[in-house]
Amino acid sequence: MVNVGVLGATGMVGQRFIEMLENHPEFELTTLAASSRSAGKPYSEAANWYLDSEMPESVRDIEVVETDPSSVGDVEILFSALPADIARKVEPRFAEKYIVASNASAMRMEPDVPLVIPEVNPEFLDLIELQQKNRGWDGFIVTNPNCSTIALTLTLKPIYDNYSIRRVYVSTMQAVSGAGYSGVPSMAILDNLVPFIGGEEEKMETETLHLLGELDEGVVRPAGFGVSASCHRVPVVDGHTEAVFIELEDEFELKDVREAMETFQGLPQKLGLYSAPEKPVVVMDEENRPQPRMDRDRDGGMAVTVGRLREDAAFENSLRYVLVGHNTIRGAAGASILNAELIKEIIL
Amino acid sequence: MVNVGVLGATGMVGQRFIEMLENHPEFELTTLAASSRSAGKPYSEAANWYLDSEMPESVRDIEVVETDPSSVGDVEILFSALPADIARKVEPRFAEKYIVASNASAMRMEPDVPLVIPEVNPEFLDLIELQQKNRGWDGFIVTNPNCSTIALTLTLKPIYDNYSIRRVYVSTMQAVSGAGYSGVPSMAILDNLVPFIGGEEEKMETETLHLLGELDEGVVRPAGFGVSASCHRVPVVDGHTEAVFIELEDEFELKDVREAMETFQGLPQKLGLYSAPEKPVVVMDEENRPQPRMDRDRDGGMAVTVGRLREDAAFENSLRYVLVGHNTIRGAAGASILNAELIKEIIL
Amino acid sequence: MVNVGVLGATGMVGQRFIEMLENHPEFELTTLAASSRSAGKPYSEAANWYLDSEMPESVRDIEVVETDPSSVGDVEILFSALPADIARKVEPRFAEKYIVASNASAMRMEPDVPLVIPEVNPEFLDLIELQQKNRGWDGFIVTNPNCSTIALTLTLKPIYDNYSIRRVYVSTMQAVSGAGYSGVPSMAILDNLVPFIGGEEEKMETETLHLLGELDEGVVRPAGFGVSASCHRVPVVDGHTEAVFIELEDEFELKDVREAMETFQGLPQKLGLYSAPEKPVVVMDEENRPQPRMDRDRDGGMAVTVGRLREDAAFENSLRYVLVGHNTIRGAAGASILNAELIKEIIL
Amino acid sequence: MVNVGVLGATGMVGQRFIEMLENHPEFELTTLAASSRSAGKPYSEAANWYLDSEMPESVRDIEVVETDPSSVGDVEILFSALPADIARKVEPRFAEKYIVASNASAMRMEPDVPLVIPEVNPEFLDLIELQQKNRGWDGFIVTNPNCSTIALTLTLKPIYDNYSIRRVYVSTMQAVSGAGYSGVPSMAILDNLVPFIGGEEEKMETETLHLLGELDEGVVRPAGFGVSASCHRVPVVDGHTEAVFIELEDEFELKDVREAMETFQGLPQKLGLYSAPEKPVVVMDEENRPQPRMDRDRDGGMAVTVGRLREDAAFENSLRYVLVGHNTIRGAAGASILNAELIKEIIL
Repeated sequence: MVNVGVLGATGMVGQRFIEMLENHPEFELTTLAASSRSAGKPYSEAANWYLDSEMPESVRDIEVVETDPSSVGDVEILFSALPADIARKVEPRFAEKYIVASNASAMRMEPDVPLVIPEVNPEFLDLIELQQKNRGWDGFIVTNPNCSTIALTLTLKPIYDNYSIRRVYVSTMQAVSGAGYSGVPSMAILDNLVPFIGGEEEKMETETLHLLGELDEGVVRPAGFGVSASCHRVPVVDGHTEAVFIELEDEFELKDVREAMETFQGLPQKLGLYSAPEKPVVVMDEENRPQPRMDRDRDGGMAVTVGRLREDAAFENSLRYVLVGHNTIRGAAGASILNAELIKEIIL
Repeated sequence: MVNVGVLGATGMVGQRFIEMLENHPEFELTTLAASSRSAGKPYSEAANWYLDSEMPESVRDIEVVETDPSSVGDVEILFSALPADIARKVEPRFAEKYIVASNASAMRMEPDVPLVIPEVNPEFLDLIELQQKNRGWDGFIVTNPNCSTIALTLTLKPIYDNYSIRRVYVSTMQAVSGAGYSGVPSMAILDNLVPFIGGEEEKMETETLHLLGELDEGVVRPAGFGVSASCHRVPVVDGHTEAVFIELEDEFELKDVREAMETFQGLPQKLGLYSAPEKPVVVMDEENRPQPRMDRDRDGGMAVTVGRLREDAAFENSLRYVLVGHNTIRGAAGASILNAELIKEIIL
Repeated sequence: MVNVGVLGATGMVGQRFIEMLENHPEFELTTLAASSRSAGKPYSEAANWYLDSEMPESVRDIEVVETDPSSVGDVEILFSALPADIARKVEPRFAEKYIVASNASAMRMEPDVPLVIPEVNPEFLDLIELQQKNRGWDGFIVTNPNCSTIALTLTLKPIYDNYSIRRVYVSTMQAVSGAGYSGVPSMAILDNLVPFIGGEEEKMETETLHLLGELDEGVVRPAGFGVSASCHRVPVVDGHTEAVFIELEDEFELKDVREAMETFQGLPQKLGLYSAPEKPVVVMDEENRPQPRMDRDRDGGMAVTVGRLREDAAFENSLRYVLVGHNTIRGAAGASILNAELIKEIIL
Repeated sequence: MVNVGVLGATGMVGQRFIEMLENHPEFELTTLAASSRSAGKPYSEAANWYLDSEMPESVRDIEVVETDPSSVGDVEILFSALPADIARKVEPRFAEKYIVASNASAMRMEPDVPLVIPEVNPEFLDLIELQQKNRGWDGFIVTNPNCSTIALTLTLKPIYDNYSIRRVYVSTMQAVSGAGYSGVPSMAILDNLVPFIGGEEEKMETETLHLLGELDEGVVRPAGFGVSASCHRVPVVDGHTEAVFIELEDEFELKDVREAMETFQGLPQKLGLYSAPEKPVVVMDEENRPQPRMDRDRDGGMAVTVGRLREDAAFENSLRYVLVGHNTIRGAAGASILNAELIKEIIL
């Protein structure tokens, strides 16, 4: 067992980390760090538990520590659910000594920090060596992408492996949990939707191409097509839905695309990683699926569900589909944990 | 005053007709037709009133009649809120004698039936003469497009007038009222969304090009670009939201597009028609607008609100925006009424 | 293993039966009956699956049969999720030969039909003998109460065992699933609530007293206090919430009431029945609980959660609390299954 | 015209004040006060407008001032939408010179401060003289009750005038707007409800009896019956719903209660005050009404709608009903404005 901790342990993604780490066969959760307001209290007092599951017994009495490398004790991996601005300051300090598997956006675009989806670009972990050399760290930082980007990129990968993509348009309908527990007031979203999520479109447009890019002598060369995103918040608790329009360079058979998605597996599946879904992408044929309430929890929230896969007669070589992915599991805590499982398997 | 009636008067769009016709300065609502189950009853007994407004006093005691030309009495114009399958059968029978301003989809694509948005293609009313000649009718049918199409096309028109459009991708987030009162079970939509609306995408892709097409010697030549739609139902009562991605043939200045939208006016504005909004398209600069609950009722629900107008750096000559339009006012009852006001002004 | 079937297998409660019977250690689900429209089809074709879980593989290929005693084959127990009007006609016919564990309201108030919550009044099963004698049946019918009644009565029982109750006022906030999949249109409930549920108040007022009554020589003598209910539908998917006000005859200590609830156990707990929750009533001390989304699934949806237990200073000897219970599990399918488990243990 | 100002002008209730004061025939809104963060900015910059209506043109350019008596200039009446803790400090300072019509709870229970619903206890305004004498103020403070209390008390008043009330139990289902724009996170309320609102039950239990009490030589003697409240937050934007159970001392005819409610009028109706609804209480006979989305806006949001008026067979001399009232109009801004209209009419 590897001792692990969670940074930002009282927030919503922090709680998902705790929920997913309970009973994890390889990771023993021993450290919970949060703001100084929480430090010194048992976790059961420090945190308002927001999830539908109950707070695991095993963490109730853990004393929350400060978010500082001197406080976290005997751990190897720290999962970071910190806000971006704090992450930018403290993650590098933790990385001097620890492995930081971060869900924060702060370090994702640093050239020597791997931004990884294990099924998509595990080879980017090669950057770790460079990172440690560049920065003189004993530990390192590995990041996962934004929630919407993960779901999109998992579905693009089997297409990208088989076809040349020319364009991607994506319009999202995102769950309120993505903004944190208090991020979206009910007054803003009941009988309503909000067609703006700060920074989200830029992340989707940048990170997707980065993830599908190539690592070439220590430099990531982004994929060469265009991605245009329009991001919207809808009254759904968990589960992001995305309408995707793709133009390919060449002709295709829809059944081949379907099969590429259905049969897609990555390194986590081959290695049998604990949190890896059997199928990263599940394709449904029902005309009214996927739906967030029905499909977000597929394979423990780690599989992305695709539906309405159809040709797009309006344009040449074009197709469309709709996807649903769980934004705080596959899109956040589960993403970091899968990264850490991969690191444990191939690096530690 | 012109005597008018409503076909399908007890349904949700029927009720919007009644609400909008109360106190109308040119139309006197004298006839309400519905199924034989309702016929013979006073309207207040026949209908469950679904709108937030109260049922107008003036219609409470009107006796509902059968949906049959022999029952409707002394009227000139009949507004049709009939389901498509019934409309296909009975609207032609009414048109033998009456003017039918129909919101139903049944006759929209008949080559001699005008499909009209008064601000967009009023000249299509020239088809009426042909229709009457072809069919030997004393009356005629004029139709308005699908709710999502109207809002989209109103915003495309000022662009189309000034630029060559190459592609339009549109992803909708549609209100539940669009499916009729009982169309979307609450179990289907609470903490959820449904990424499918039967026939909607086809309507948006076909009707938009038809409306922006040209009437050439009695034949409509559709506009020559491509439209691809993905349609989704969200937990919003009224007001459709649409994310629109447009590629133009040539370069453009965003401020020019903005100005074209803001200053856009059509024949209804020039003629000062009663239900015509001052500005068919209102552009907002707030980064988180338009929102359906906040913007659907603009100008009595007859104006479409555009926001997040921005360039699309992913592709050449491309831009994006989000729109909100009231689906049962501008997108249904109000559309038919504006058609009728135009007909009264230029034909009767 | 006892072979069992489900009547009304395609509806929402029918699906909960199927979900709960998958992997049941004592019941083998072999028969699924539904309307003639579904009969002859494999279940996967006959049913639209409404639950968030996936349709169990084990039922996908079961051929749905007609709701008729001649069709159900080799089963001992039939779980009934039939509508009341159909149940009234067909349940007696099934009971000639089979055990019918019914969630329908039709037969609940028949004097020789046990209306049972296993933790509350298991002794009412003694009526079975009388029922079989009266009606000449080889099988019999046992019923469970209405969903709101079950949750209320489970919390009243430990109080009633220790104090004389004078009055109960209860105001419910009920989930939409209680009306069946299509029972509550989204137009009726988004940004809204409906303060009326047909027949619900009468059921709560009658069934509660019946359940807490005494079986005296084959006749149920209802409990002697008053129950007044006001029932309301709110925009919640699953889980009924009830605000309960109780006046006792005598003084009480709140901590004693709390302890009576917390330590309450019934026959199912003593017998270790498979679906019996460890604690039928769980008391929470957090000031803002219970909440339906957070607490409905406690102990597999079989425990009722009580919170805000507090004295009522406005009246003598009075107290108040709020409860949440899962309406389609503890309040429907799970109730019938627990009845059947009890029957298997003490009768079969 | 009387010059008036709003304290707490940028919050949700502050915005309702502004909306209701636009075009008011007697009050000219000249002053908007808010926190120092907003002071010095034009209102259109200082405030995020939360209401569905548009921000009135007339206030866009008003420069927001500090919440200090020295800043508000030439006004006679100040409407207070301040939080209770700030109100407690600053309202007395304003009252040295100005009339303060306050929606805040801070001063409601001060013995010499009138807590008034104009239709219920206008005579409590006699306390003003005492207040000015006690405190040496040239101005004074008048308050209105809590939102839930106003709606409840308006419906109790016509009963209390005609019968002796013994008990009132009330269970509320309250809109999220009652907690202010950011008061209820969407994560807390989607597919959920929260059975707790801090301080609300105490306010309902105390204020109701105070309002129905008697002013006896400068002292309010509260009404002598008991009120027990259980308060719950539900996913509704605006409009509080309350289930009310009443026990009277004596027999009654339901039709007499109905008529007392329907014909109830108070001083505002007799004086024809501008914001007074024609009928303070409207009784509906439809079995599924009142509903918040349908009924909250009745008579501009100033009338309370009662439905499901029925006898309560469980207890002697008992009846039940459900009410809906608009919480930020009749229950807040409109309440203060009606108080001010009454003061202008009978005092100024």
